[in-house]
Amino acid sequence: MYAVPIARLIEEFAKLPGVGKRTAERLAYHVMKMPRQEVVAFSEALLAAKDHITFCPVCQSLTEKVPCEICSDTRRDRGLICVVEKPKDVIKIEKIREFKGLYHVLHGVISPMDGIGPDDIRIKELLDRVHKGEVREVIMATNPNLEGEATAMYIAKLLKNFGIKTTRLAHGIPVGGDLEYADEVTLTRALEGRHEIN
Amino acid sequence: MYAVPIARLIEEFAKLPGVGKRTAERLAYHVMKMPRQEVVAFSEALLAAKDHITFCPVCQSLTEKVPCEICSDTRRDRGLICVVEKPKDVIKIEKIREFKGLYHVLHGVISPMDGIGPDDIRIKELLDRVHKGEVREVIMATNPNLEGEATAMYIAKLLKNFGIKTTRLAHGIPVGGDLEYADEVTLTRALEGRHEIN
Repeated sequence: MYAVPIARLIEEFAKLPGVGKRTAERLAYHVMKMPRQEVVAFSEALLAAKDHITFCPVCQSLTEKVPCEICSDTRRDRGLICVVEKPKDVIKIEKIREFKGLYHVLHGVISPMDGIGPDDIRIKELLDRVHKGEVREVIMATNPNLEGEATAMYIAKLLKNFGIKTTRLAHGIPVGGDLEYADEVTLTRALEGRHEIN
Repeated sequence: MYAVPIARLIEEFAKLPGVGKRTAERLAYHVMKMPRQEVVAFSEALLAAKDHITFCPVCQSLTEKVPCEICSDTRRDRGLICVVEKPKDVIKIEKIREFKGLYHVLHGVISPMDGIGPDDIRIKELLDRVHKGEVREVIMATNPNLEGEATAMYIAKLLKNFGIKTTRLAHGIPVGGDLEYADEVTLTRALEGRHEIN
């Protein structure tokens, strides 16, 4: 019963993760009350982000530059790769200014319950990097929950064939917690106390 | 530490009501993974809704047509106005196909706690309509909570000066509901509003 343009906007909002029909309606209604220039800014920001941000072909993180700032920084230790679940985790670890290696963003974890297998996350890209021979150690910094642990174990097993040391962030992070919510001290401890996966 | 285009998109999402920094990040990240054509559709839907949908100058509801379909429908009873808080309430009432009058959307309720006074919602526009003399009865269909009740009372008082009948939607136990689960206020209202069985 909504006019088409508003029904379409509600539909678009409802496609976003965690946004139900009711929330979508509330958001669309809010847009109707926003000044036009703000709607223009929002509309443009969507496309600008999509058009100017890409996945770094090396670490798979989000970047404006190709390869990303971190991957193209020659002062960083190219023999050390920290594997994380999502781009935000890179930002989180960068903040503590402790880690001098490179990153690899998986964009998810292996989760059979959600139908996500090894081929659905960027493991192949990690193996390609390792294959080039520069890598000495891979730190698995996936979250300390069931899927994160299983993914770390899976990747560690694959890397063993390359004779590469695979380590895991120490359990300074509460088990069952999320990397995103860890405070900086905890994260630093976790990084220092990393141990080898056998 | 986010690249500018993504930081800007996060900022735009965070401006939406009920969307915090963390949710905004999650939504922006999702946009990065959406196919470009879907982002274009979302971006266009925002502007299209803003540009093609306006507030009906009569009832203040959202509409593509001016005045809206309901206000321009000559078969409807122009002497009866149902006052609601938001456009969605109009759709809700239209669905039952029982009401043949017109609507008036306040776009909120009086709420001193939130700094919303009578001049911040569309009461003046309602009085202008009533002033034209066609209106016989105004049904206050604001929500049965503190602000909704206060707003209904406030408007009823103003309309008294025009010698217009102001009514309120009945409160009570929902049809099919269970007395056991009804809250005390609802039960009190149900008791007060009891009617004779013939």
